[in-house]
Amino acid sequence: MANLREVSVIGVGMSRFAKQPEISIVDLTQAPILDALEDAGVAVGQVQAAYSGSVFGGSGLGQKVLKGIGISSIPILNLENACSSGSSAFREAWLGVASGMVDVTLAFGAEKLTALGGGAFPLSDDIEADQGVLMPAVYAMRARRHMMEYGTTIEQLAKIAVKNHHNSVHNPRAQYQREYTLEEVLNSRMIADPLTILHCCPSGDGAAAVVLAATEIAPRLRGKPIKVRASVLQSGLFKNDFRDMTKSDLSYRAAAAAYEMAGLGPEDIDVAEVHDAFTIGELMYYEALGFCAPGDGGRLIDDGATEIGGRIPVNPSGGLLSKGHPVGATGVAQIVEIVSQLRGNCGPRQIAGARIGLTHCTGGGVAGFDHIACTIHVFEQ
Amino acid sequence: MANLREVSVIGVGMSRFAKQPEISIVDLTQAPILDALEDAGVAVGQVQAAYSGSVFGGSGLGQKVLKGIGISSIPILNLENACSSGSSAFREAWLGVASGMVDVTLAFGAEKLTALGGGAFPLSDDIEADQGVLMPAVYAMRARRHMMEYGTTIEQLAKIAVKNHHNSVHNPRAQYQREYTLEEVLNSRMIADPLTILHCCPSGDGAAAVVLAATEIAPRLRGKPIKVRASVLQSGLFKNDFRDMTKSDLSYRAAAAAYEMAGLGPEDIDVAEVHDAFTIGELMYYEALGFCAPGDGGRLIDDGATEIGGRIPVNPSGGLLSKGHPVGATGVAQIVEIVSQLRGNCGPRQIAGARIGLTHCTGGGVAGFDHIACTIHVFEQ
Repeated sequence: MANLREVSVIGVGMSRFAKQPEISIVDLTQAPILDALEDAGVAVGQVQAAYSGSVFGGSGLGQKVLKGIGISSIPILNLENACSSGSSAFREAWLGVASGMVDVTLAFGAEKLTALGGGAFPLSDDIEADQGVLMPAVYAMRARRHMMEYGTTIEQLAKIAVKNHHNSVHNPRAQYQREYTLEEVLNSRMIADPLTILHCCPSGDGAAAVVLAATEIAPRLRGKPIKVRASVLQSGLFKNDFRDMTKSDLSYRAAAAAYEMAGLGPEDIDVAEVHDAFTIGELMYYEALGFCAPGDGGRLIDDGATEIGGRIPVNPSGGLLSKGHPVGATGVAQIVEIVSQLRGNCGPRQIAGARIGLTHCTGGGVAGFDHIACTIHVFEQ
Repeated sequence: MANLREVSVIGVGMSRFAKQPEISIVDLTQAPILDALEDAGVAVGQVQAAYSGSVFGGSGLGQKVLKGIGISSIPILNLENACSSGSSAFREAWLGVASGMVDVTLAFGAEKLTALGGGAFPLSDDIEADQGVLMPAVYAMRARRHMMEYGTTIEQLAKIAVKNHHNSVHNPRAQYQREYTLEEVLNSRMIADPLTILHCCPSGDGAAAVVLAATEIAPRLRGKPIKVRASVLQSGLFKNDFRDMTKSDLSYRAAAAAYEMAGLGPEDIDVAEVHDAFTIGELMYYEALGFCAPGDGGRLIDDGATEIGGRIPVNPSGGLLSKGHPVGATGVAQIVEIVSQLRGNCGPRQIAGARIGLTHCTGGGVAGFDHIACTIHVFEQ
């Protein structure tokens, strides 16, 4: 393995996630960057490289955003990896510092889905998507298969939506801030049987930003540093996931790599933000991340283990289901939440004594690209 | 500075650059990747990470391209930096190896401008571009200013087009392969006074790929390794260039950083590929790269110094003006040419005894983003 330096996150910021068509993506993204810099105690002139993640932000988004806040004469890179765009940007920002090239970097993710006029997918050259094999359909098939193989119930899946909406009541940045009952989730509008609309994440706009620094210089800056213990990016083929539809080959591989890099195991994780674009996604990824045995996701929910106060709280922010999912921003927003949890800054949704946290963000799948990317990051107080 | 490993390019490949609307961007890009792997003696299973550069290729282009040639279960990243997209992908591929994260990486760039239906720019939110301040207009202003300040003549600028078209007669991958006379250049259709169409690069489609490896493992592979002595990425503000319209602040800064990183100076460069989207661009960048003093670009041309056989040959491939400029592919194609030159593989356009080469690729400028990116790479035999 490489002779890499330890890196810490020293500042975080994020916008409200919501449908906010009146704000440009540039304005939407500048505010959380300024918040993250302020939090870190880093002046714009101290940022040595910047990494922007977005799917639909267009050419040169990073430069456009940074220009307006006085950052221009540094390396700036724009990265895209579907729903993992923001977390891929974080990964390159981490490597910039870990390699010793630079000491302080900025990573941010941004998306304005309301600017797309009703949806980005499917692409015209995707035959399966044209026939209806869209994300909700894929996850619906996974849900049905998990129910058949393991006796998982629709009520167990619905409890994930109830939990995440409950959590985000205490997250002022979340798109939704109200409780939903089990009955409301089960009886909401059907999207792809058995998934009703409250089993699916909403569409919206948002941005999130973090400042990274070499741990060795962090004490000279204001922000309370949270160490990066693992940074893993993997791609894969969606069809490999369908050898066993209840298991994401890619997430299993990425998790194994992340735990190896961190020198930790799933039993060490105190809090996680997991890619819950659909309730069945969160449940499948419990298993991929080793929070329970394959097939036991339903029981984990019934036991309340992933609630705040449970054995392994998942998505205290509200997750994609309730905090929202402006795709390019999501991976960075997950990191904002975990860093805030490990700093003890989360108020009513704080996980008591959280010392080690994990973020899992996976992108792509169908509709124009049946391959996927997955990032997993592990953080320590 | 970081404790980075030395990296070499061990394989290269590129498509023909041309208008080729009948080929998909995926097909167009797979062939040069396979050529680069074959050249390197690297099997698809040995590639440990891949970096794709494109402006208009869409979400997940890297994954789409690689899936069809059997590369999927590795980190794959899509990068965008306007005309520097491909060279920015190379830069991250270099850092992946230099940092010790991985030993063998793949970088490629691709663009299909014929798919855009007549042009990508300007963007609707760019007021200046809407008023006509497009790339040809900007470079025309620069040409007029250089002529006024330094007595540079339109004939000197036209000689750059004559030289580059002469060079590409011997480049089977170039979009144009015919000689143009000085009169033809001067008398072709006016685009932005004083620049006629033959002062401007064409639009087209193309892809290029390179394989990188740690120099320490290169002897175990087939490809003749060419060392990377410097990899520099910088961004900047276009308005800074206009403090003195004849000087690109960004290219001057990037050149200084690249020479410092390489421990070399402009006098050490035996051959260069320079961003000649317009004839005046090549001339301005002679000066920024230190091939002559500021203002002396016209004399450098008159002396024949940048011709094949001259003191510092520039754009033996034909450059953007004649080889073509499918934007995302350009930065990687420049590297393909320099590596081929340093290997002595360029036949009739070979620079005798070339040992050290440089690539300069700069992107953006107007039309939606008045900031720019610039990459400079230095290579040694």
